[in-house]
Amino acid sequence: MTVNVRSACRHLGQLVFILVGVIVGVAVFSGVSLAAGAADERTAMDSLLLSAGIGLGIGFLLYLPGRREAGHFGQREALLLVAAAWLIGAGIAALPYWTWAAMRPESGTIAHDFDTYTNCYFEAMSGLTTTGATVVQSLATLPRSLLLWRALTQWMGGLGIVVLFVAVLPMLGVGGRRIYSIESPGPRPEGVTPRIQDAARILWLIYLGLTVVEVLALRLFGMSWFDATCHTFATLATGGFSTQDSSLGGFASTAIHVVVIVFMVLAGVNFSVYYQLLRRQWRSVLRDAELRAYLAIMLAGTVIVGVSLWNSTAAAAEAGILHPSAGHVVRDAAFQVASIQTTTGFCTADFDTWGFVAKATLVVLMFIGGSAGSTGGGIKVVRVLVVVRVMLAEIEHVFRPHVVRTLKIGRRTIEPEMKINTLVYILGIAALFAAGTVGLMIIESGQGIDITTAATASAATLNNIGPGLARVGATQNYAWFSDMSKWLMSALMVLGRLEVYTLIVLFQPKFWRGE
Amino acid sequence: MTVNVRSACRHLGQLVFILVGVIVGVAVFSGVSLAAGAADERTAMDSLLLSAGIGLGIGFLLYLPGRREAGHFGQREALLLVAAAWLIGAGIAALPYWTWAAMRPESGTIAHDFDTYTNCYFEAMSGLTTTGATVVQSLATLPRSLLLWRALTQWMGGLGIVVLFVAVLPMLGVGGRRIYSIESPGPRPEGVTPRIQDAARILWLIYLGLTVVEVLALRLFGMSWFDATCHTFATLATGGFSTQDSSLGGFASTAIHVVVIVFMVLAGVNFSVYYQLLRRQWRSVLRDAELRAYLAIMLAGTVIVGVSLWNSTAAAAEAGILHPSAGHVVRDAAFQVASIQTTTGFCTADFDTWGFVAKATLVVLMFIGGSAGSTGGGIKVVRVLVVVRVMLAEIEHVFRPHVVRTLKIGRRTIEPEMKINTLVYILGIAALFAAGTVGLMIIESGQGIDITTAATASAATLNNIGPGLARVGATQNYAWFSDMSKWLMSALMVLGRLEVYTLIVLFQPKFWRGE
Repeated sequence: MTVNVRSACRHLGQLVFILVGVIVGVAVFSGVSLAAGAADERTAMDSLLLSAGIGLGIGFLLYLPGRREAGHFGQREALLLVAAAWLIGAGIAALPYWTWAAMRPESGTIAHDFDTYTNCYFEAMSGLTTTGATVVQSLATLPRSLLLWRALTQWMGGLGIVVLFVAVLPMLGVGGRRIYSIESPGPRPEGVTPRIQDAARILWLIYLGLTVVEVLALRLFGMSWFDATCHTFATLATGGFSTQDSSLGGFASTAIHVVVIVFMVLAGVNFSVYYQLLRRQWRSVLRDAELRAYLAIMLAGTVIVGVSLWNSTAAAAEAGILHPSAGHVVRDAAFQVASIQTTTGFCTADFDTWGFVAKATLVVLMFIGGSAGSTGGGIKVVRVLVVVRVMLAEIEHVFRPHVVRTLKIGRRTIEPEMKINTLVYILGIAALFAAGTVGLMIIESGQGIDITTAATASAATLNNIGPGLARVGATQNYAWFSDMSKWLMSALMVLGRLEVYTLIVLFQPKFWRGE
Repeated sequence: MTVNVRSACRHLGQLVFILVGVIVGVAVFSGVSLAAGAADERTAMDSLLLSAGIGLGIGFLLYLPGRREAGHFGQREALLLVAAAWLIGAGIAALPYWTWAAMRPESGTIAHDFDTYTNCYFEAMSGLTTTGATVVQSLATLPRSLLLWRALTQWMGGLGIVVLFVAVLPMLGVGGRRIYSIESPGPRPEGVTPRIQDAARILWLIYLGLTVVEVLALRLFGMSWFDATCHTFATLATGGFSTQDSSLGGFASTAIHVVVIVFMVLAGVNFSVYYQLLRRQWRSVLRDAELRAYLAIMLAGTVIVGVSLWNSTAAAAEAGILHPSAGHVVRDAAFQVASIQTTTGFCTADFDTWGFVAKATLVVLMFIGGSAGSTGGGIKVVRVLVVVRVMLAEIEHVFRPHVVRTLKIGRRTIEPEMKINTLVYILGIAALFAAGTVGLMIIESGQGIDITTAATASAATLNNIGPGLARVGATQNYAWFSDMSKWLMSALMVLGRLEVYTLIVLFQPKFWRGE
């Protein structure tokens, strides 16, 4: 039995139609509220509508061949659908950038970062995967409707573009659960209702609720409605796209920073926790081992980074440079730790100038990441917990070879299959990280790239963070990489977002032969 | 039941007596054949005898308290004995260096690298663990009897200092098997006879046989008896200490290089293969999955490094620099790949000047290492095989969730326990590598150490190789590190040699409480 490609393509076509609908929505919003009198907004609106038209064509090409397919839709079809949805989704999400760059009046005279499709695809993939790495050197050159589209790609990608459609449409039937478990970050969805469509809907409602609250909070503390909306989309998706080149450093309000910290932390929590809160299951929330570990790691990270930052600024103060207040140091440390561990990637300070201990801590947090079932990336806290327990058990096994213990996380038993699964996942991430680093070193060897840049660019794209260190640091961007590097990093982003194995199976001949 | 420390100490004392015997042997040999007329050799002989005296005292202090202990000797006592034997063994093996530096006539006027005990301990641990990293900036300053002692520490450490004594003395009885499996590199000893003492003796006889053949071969191709002996000790132990600062680059004979390549490769093979050859089990040797993979990886590494080297020298030739012949490139590539993968660490060329691809390949080989049950370090080929099989199975599991396959290596089934064990081991190595790198970066931050130096110094000590890249490259040494870094790297060396968990258990309170 081979893979039913037509059946997967039909669903893919439906997804493309919905994506087109969202693009049209942005175009309409742009026409109504942004384009009044601004020429560049009108160009952007045209480019959005043109992109929608191209997308519609692609959608039909995918939908028509299989429209009469009664269609088996099993595990392989679900995997193919999810993988293709992300690869093609980014291709379509890139169109507004690309067509806008070609249609703007200065096109041909003044170059723009969106002139090449490679750059646009990188930016779109960075958005959908909630990475937040950008090729745009000056965000001021972009019309507001494109900034909104850019933020919206993150918001859609946060909980999963395919799951979004599972929530909206009843079309997928039995395939829904499969897709849900493939696309949700982390090893398992738990504590949600049995009906997968209800579950997806409830998660998206929680997501929407958090969105409304954060927009209001940011507006209350002085952001414009537009900035508040864009930053909210990027916060809750743990994406990190800003409307300013200086990221949240451009908003010098402690209240805004604190609001963003709170919502980043909330976005990195397993969303089933909110579901449990809604059902008033207080005890199971309080006993949630991953939630506790997530908060504990974040607190420890803040303390280490804060102390390191305090020491280095104290040294700078002795040299006559202004010493920031303790409050300032705590705020910067807490913001950056939350931003990196949740894999958001917002910046309020140039952490590339911080001491080695602070930077090393941030790199470790990049790999740990958020909770399973959150919008955050990285390895996920629960996997780290599993590995730590397994390692301790192995150490005990050395001097007590005949003792066999059942390992638990909270009240859940860790089955041997889950141990192997988790260990293999982490090794896979380590291997991809190393391969990405070596690949960037080789591709960019003509530019004399340093190992810190290559390694943190690899880590920051694979774990869906955004900024790294050195030449991809907080004040830098990804525009200077060669095209080949950008495709490599686009691949790392989607591999990280879909948790590696969903994509790798497509390269297995066995997958296609259906053996 | 708590750990029987006295019983472990008694055996430890016996081991120290034997180590003292070896030191006395070197002193006698030095007096008979080296010291005639050379003042510095007489000083070295005195220092060896003094070290033997100090060692004797330490041995009695360990032996006497438990001499009447009938004594339970179980898994914990065996672990404690092996761990303590390596830590204390290095302490005693360092004494000849330290006492010699203090007793030489120039002491107090001309400084020597062996003036500090930290340096001497590092050198001794580097010897016993067959790492081959050195703190000696000029080997010409050392008397020949110390060079011989230095090479001999590697030879003893190659198959395991405790196993050596298991082979020599019948004293350990039932504990022998435990010690054997703790100290032998790799996940399991296999294909050896049931009687552990016989097995240990056969392995040491094979080792001795190879030693005699290599000494004769090197002598035949022009080395002095002294150099041939020292280099043979360092080759078969996959140690890498040379008698020359330029390592084997100082012997510009292709025949010598080829002989050393052959014996390095042989030393990286599981010694049970030789046992099978002695028993004429040709088929099981030919079907040995690890042996095949070991040779295949080495061949692939040689091709990649050779091509990279050829390209970069071709580029240099265009710039007017002499282009070496193809034969020269093949020899250098084969030598360096064999030297690094077997974790020997000899050098015939300064590979730090080679291209990025060649260097990256060598770093990957550092982690793969030799075969289980060989004298080589690293992760070991069989573990790499297990991980590759497990990863492929996990990929299949994504699209075929209900298929369960039995994984095999050759005809051996990989049990779930072994999968977890192997995965945890590799993650442990990765974690120690990262911790070592970060530790060196922090300790040496005053010296402005670069990340390549720190990372490859960590990898080269943890995997028992010796040279790394940049400031620990082929033409460099470890003298410039601070004392704290040297202790850290000594810890990495013994952690790598004893495969991590043997030492880590000693830091578990449960181990001592005997729960």
